[in-house]
Amino acid sequence: MEIAILVYPRFTALDAVGPYEVLSRLPGARVTFVAEQAVPQRTDTTQLALLADATIRELPHPDIVLVPGGPGQTALMEDGPVHEWLRAAHETSTWTTSVCTGSLVLAAAGLLDGKRATSNWQAIEQLRALGADAVEEERVVFDDKIVTSAGVTAGIDMALQLAARIGGDQLAQAIQLGLEYDPQPPFDAGSPHKAPAEVVEAVRAYSRFAEHVV
Amino acid sequence: MEIAILVYPRFTALDAVGPYEVLSRLPGARVTFVAEQAVPQRTDTTQLALLADATIRELPHPDIVLVPGGPGQTALMEDGPVHEWLRAAHETSTWTTSVCTGSLVLAAAGLLDGKRATSNWQAIEQLRALGADAVEEERVVFDDKIVTSAGVTAGIDMALQLAARIGGDQLAQAIQLGLEYDPQPPFDAGSPHKAPAEVVEAVRAYSRFAEHVV
Repeated sequence: MEIAILVYPRFTALDAVGPYEVLSRLPGARVTFVAEQAVPQRTDTTQLALLADATIRELPHPDIVLVPGGPGQTALMEDGPVHEWLRAAHETSTWTTSVCTGSLVLAAAGLLDGKRATSNWQAIEQLRALGADAVEEERVVFDDKIVTSAGVTAGIDMALQLAARIGGDQLAQAIQLGLEYDPQPPFDAGSPHKAPAEVVEAVRAYSRFAEHVV
Repeated sequence: MEIAILVYPRFTALDAVGPYEVLSRLPGARVTFVAEQAVPQRTDTTQLALLADATIRELPHPDIVLVPGGPGQTALMEDGPVHEWLRAAHETSTWTTSVCTGSLVLAAAGLLDGKRATSNWQAIEQLRALGADAVEEERVVFDDKIVTSAGVTAGIDMALQLAARIGGDQLAQAIQLGLEYDPQPPFDAGSPHKAPAEVVEAVRAYSRFAEHVV
């Protein structure tokens, strides 16, 4: 089972590495980090770089395609080689998936027209404007073979749901136990419906600021 | 604030990338992935490589030291440059931390003698044998400035607790919201006390198998 995780300059590392850690543990899985160029891809913080081990041209027909999000997503909204690759890969994929604002790239490539899909909580309106049936308040959304997830850490939950569909509940549970995924966040602040209002506003304000400085 | 995350051949990516994603969002934080050699470090699955941007010699006195776990930890149990670096860094660090079996390396370097500490659920006995006051059933354990966490994904919870100690609860909540960390695992199987018995036994058996083939 060939799994291609797209990486690009200024992606968010955990969007990609969370699902990788789950999916690479499926029997027979081969995960490849792919990019337009097979060179190190530096993340949004500039403080980490992951190797892309292959170009997208080298993996035209993966069984699973995964598009992570991150600020660099904005540079992938125009038609071009990544969109062409996504459209062709989607024709033969078993699952076409995204984490966070990765769904905006899928939508821009024309793959989410009328599809139920989600994204980072701050990108839901943009996802809707791109033609998707954008869903809020669901962390993982399946629409046939398209699977989209909410922000960053939601990719872990998405990958476990996928693992269960692919290999059964017990295998997914074994992977979850191997990753000791028994989450105990110190606060209940992981969604805009749960975080204190002033925290939500601060994060929104910071995002507006960041849009202008990058 | 200088944060050094140690990487090495066959580490587990999420052990490092989970905390990185949290800690790099602290104002003024500079995370550097360090290794004995500043070259790409391939993870336990061989399917992903992260760059080490600096050698351990280039960062002798980080404010936060983080040691991830993974099968490659076994090659770091003998005294040598990594232990020397950890002992010297610990003398001046604000926090000395580990995820998963990273605590075994801290223990082997002599930093956990008599300290309350934890590790991957399958490594608790080994941690105890190395002289730590090994704690089961706590996901994140503080003992003065030493902070250890349970397996893989526990590093995210540890980093959020650290973020709260460093920058206050509201900042940690803002980071949590930014990462949309509102976990919804599809199963309640993330600890050996919660997973079905046959799943626990399968994971144990697989670990015994893996020890012999690598």
